[in-house]
Amino acid sequence: MSAVDVKAYKGHVVFTPQFGRYEIIENGYIVVEGGKVKGVYQDLPAAYANLEVIDYGDKLIIPGFVDLHFHAPQFVNRGLGLDKELIPWLETYTFPEESKYKDLAYAKKAYQNVVRELWKQGTTRCVLFATIHKDATIKLMELLDKAGLAAYVGKVNMDRNAPDILIETTEDSLRDTEEFLKETVDKYEKVKPIITPRFVPTCSPELMRGLSELARKYNVPIQSHLSENRSEVAWVKELHPECPNYASVYEQFQLFGQQPTVMAHCIYLTDEEIELMARNKVYVAHSPHSNNNLSSGISPIRKLIKAGVPVGLASDISGGHDVSIPSVMVAAAQVSKLKWVEDSANGDPLSTAELFYLATKGGGSFFGKVGSFEEGYEFDALVIDDSSLADVNPRTIEERLQRFIYIGDDRNIVARYVAGKKIEEPQF
Amino acid sequence: MSAVDVKAYKGHVVFTPQFGRYEIIENGYIVVEGGKVKGVYQDLPAAYANLEVIDYGDKLIIPGFVDLHFHAPQFVNRGLGLDKELIPWLETYTFPEESKYKDLAYAKKAYQNVVRELWKQGTTRCVLFATIHKDATIKLMELLDKAGLAAYVGKVNMDRNAPDILIETTEDSLRDTEEFLKETVDKYEKVKPIITPRFVPTCSPELMRGLSELARKYNVPIQSHLSENRSEVAWVKELHPECPNYASVYEQFQLFGQQPTVMAHCIYLTDEEIELMARNKVYVAHSPHSNNNLSSGISPIRKLIKAGVPVGLASDISGGHDVSIPSVMVAAAQVSKLKWVEDSANGDPLSTAELFYLATKGGGSFFGKVGSFEEGYEFDALVIDDSSLADVNPRTIEERLQRFIYIGDDRNIVARYVAGKKIEEPQF
Repeated sequence: MSAVDVKAYKGHVVFTPQFGRYEIIENGYIVVEGGKVKGVYQDLPAAYANLEVIDYGDKLIIPGFVDLHFHAPQFVNRGLGLDKELIPWLETYTFPEESKYKDLAYAKKAYQNVVRELWKQGTTRCVLFATIHKDATIKLMELLDKAGLAAYVGKVNMDRNAPDILIETTEDSLRDTEEFLKETVDKYEKVKPIITPRFVPTCSPELMRGLSELARKYNVPIQSHLSENRSEVAWVKELHPECPNYASVYEQFQLFGQQPTVMAHCIYLTDEEIELMARNKVYVAHSPHSNNNLSSGISPIRKLIKAGVPVGLASDISGGHDVSIPSVMVAAAQVSKLKWVEDSANGDPLSTAELFYLATKGGGSFFGKVGSFEEGYEFDALVIDDSSLADVNPRTIEERLQRFIYIGDDRNIVARYVAGKKIEEPQF
Repeated sequence: MSAVDVKAYKGHVVFTPQFGRYEIIENGYIVVEGGKVKGVYQDLPAAYANLEVIDYGDKLIIPGFVDLHFHAPQFVNRGLGLDKELIPWLETYTFPEESKYKDLAYAKKAYQNVVRELWKQGTTRCVLFATIHKDATIKLMELLDKAGLAAYVGKVNMDRNAPDILIETTEDSLRDTEEFLKETVDKYEKVKPIITPRFVPTCSPELMRGLSELARKYNVPIQSHLSENRSEVAWVKELHPECPNYASVYEQFQLFGQQPTVMAHCIYLTDEEIELMARNKVYVAHSPHSNNNLSSGISPIRKLIKAGVPVGLASDISGGHDVSIPSVMVAAAQVSKLKWVEDSANGDPLSTAELFYLATKGGGSFFGKVGSFEEGYEFDALVIDDSSLADVNPRTIEERLQRFIYIGDDRNIVARYVAGKKIEEPQF
């Protein structure tokens, strides 16, 4: 064995190097060196003749799924309370649950289930909200690391317009965040901290300014929510009459792309906001299940992509009920079609190949070279055994992938890799 | 043992006697006599002291799911070709597949998978389209009967605007249909024929007139499609300029409630059409996955229900990709919310309790006393073991049901009954 681990994986290789364009190598090989893709080949080059080949036979090998927005403490609330809109839903279900995470034993039990489900559904990378509680947030990171998953995890900040059980003083919020950053920024290889103002209404200007400074000081990315719901947009307007729009509130505090930034939802954006996002390369975490479940609306994804805004997909647990990114892809296809029905000027519906890109390389690029099998990309991969979905007719590789997305589930995922390492079901 | 089989089933009993109102009996009993519900009790009455009790412990007992619209031959196409609209999708995927069912061996193989999946997903009653092929349609009925499922199954009719491989002469279409009716009308206890003009564009006036006569002669119900898509509505207008609207074409041929009738989709209805449906008690088979997948639009279900139109849910395989009725419920909730976002005058979104009614008693009433546990109802039931969905918090029975609907799947269905008979996985 050489100093650097080199292996080849054989199977039907599918990925999307560009938005909407599949690269398909039937019975192909992926050579992985030191956790990174060296190349993808129809036939193994002579130089690799003696390489160990992991042969997945008639199975598909695809990039792992990326989830750009997921509230880990709300995992237990999946499927509950979905007869409400955003603000009453937050007050009735979300905040009371999140307050429990000051209890580290509770947090550990609940977060183990989150990590197990991420593993199960083939989400190899994710960007997570935790709660305001520093210790519970670090516990979540420890569990993710133990499971071998890659993630950004944020300790949430809120110092205004939050219930008593969850509100922090500005001072405590900033102090806890800096302690959190110090403790975690170099602790785990693939699990990293992210600055997490919950959203404008719950963060005072002082807090947003302080968080922005911490993001730069520790060189970490930023996540938050933007323009999910009409009454939320109106509320932000009331709180910040000095700003022309919602996005510009984050922008004035340098929380909008000055460090890599991802914003959940982005439904009711003005053209100025879209332009700003494109200019600052602020990511959209598109979460159609959540936007539907909470009666929020349909995000104009085609328009955002055309404008140059980077987009990935998100479950948004527990506004969204389903951790499965293929399920999110189906919902994203459906709402893009309804948007087109409403007015065809909104642009064509999103195709499966376009959605596959968003689910892999689109969101993956927030982590660097992730979500593709091009040279130099980290080898995050899923092996799909779709034999249970086979029908009486022969199908192309593209059709088999589409069927897995629409009618498959976790039972069809038979192996998972993160940065070249095979990860097994978490044992805790 | 008495001449009539009497048994009690114990568990957490949930059903919806009225639209939107749960009846929940925690640790309750359902007494079933001769396949029909005798009563539901918190404590077993003294008269039943010696009754055999099937104890399902902490599990939920709910009515079986009803699917009012499902194209059996399209089952193999689930998840394929969903980047197209209705008419091109029909031409590219649907018609070529349906033409294969002239081969009885092919039909048998494909239909076995359909029946197995219906069983697996807990769909105890369904209304199915087959193809134009009489023998294959009878084969499907035979397989359903063997599995113990209840269904209406239709031999499809089309004598115009259909591809050569699937078109019938009017004469052949009517003759085959009458032979089909004669052979099946009394053959199976719970699997019955239904008159099935595909939709107005593919059925000549002579054919529609003849089918209407057959429906009355053999006293069988009717199914078809109505107002799925704007270009389809325009096409019908062109074909029948003498009629004020799409529904009135069916009405003029007495195919619109003169016998019990169910119409799939019903998206772009005029107020006159809605009034006619309410007056004639024509059912809507609401299939939101299909309406989304094929870029058709959102059916105004709240408005239809308020107007007095009977409504049930439908997978509409393979416009819809998912056989699971709980998955259809979630999609129906989501689109009702998007309709509300578009204009709150469309009425409140559909609640989970309302959707549960549509999925059981709403659609079930097309079969008679089906879909509830009220006295005299046929005992169609599912036993739900939701222990895999449990979280770290205690949950009410209503919350447990809602979680099963949103995040459960076929793995949580551990027993299935149709008309009092326990049905096991089909062995073929």
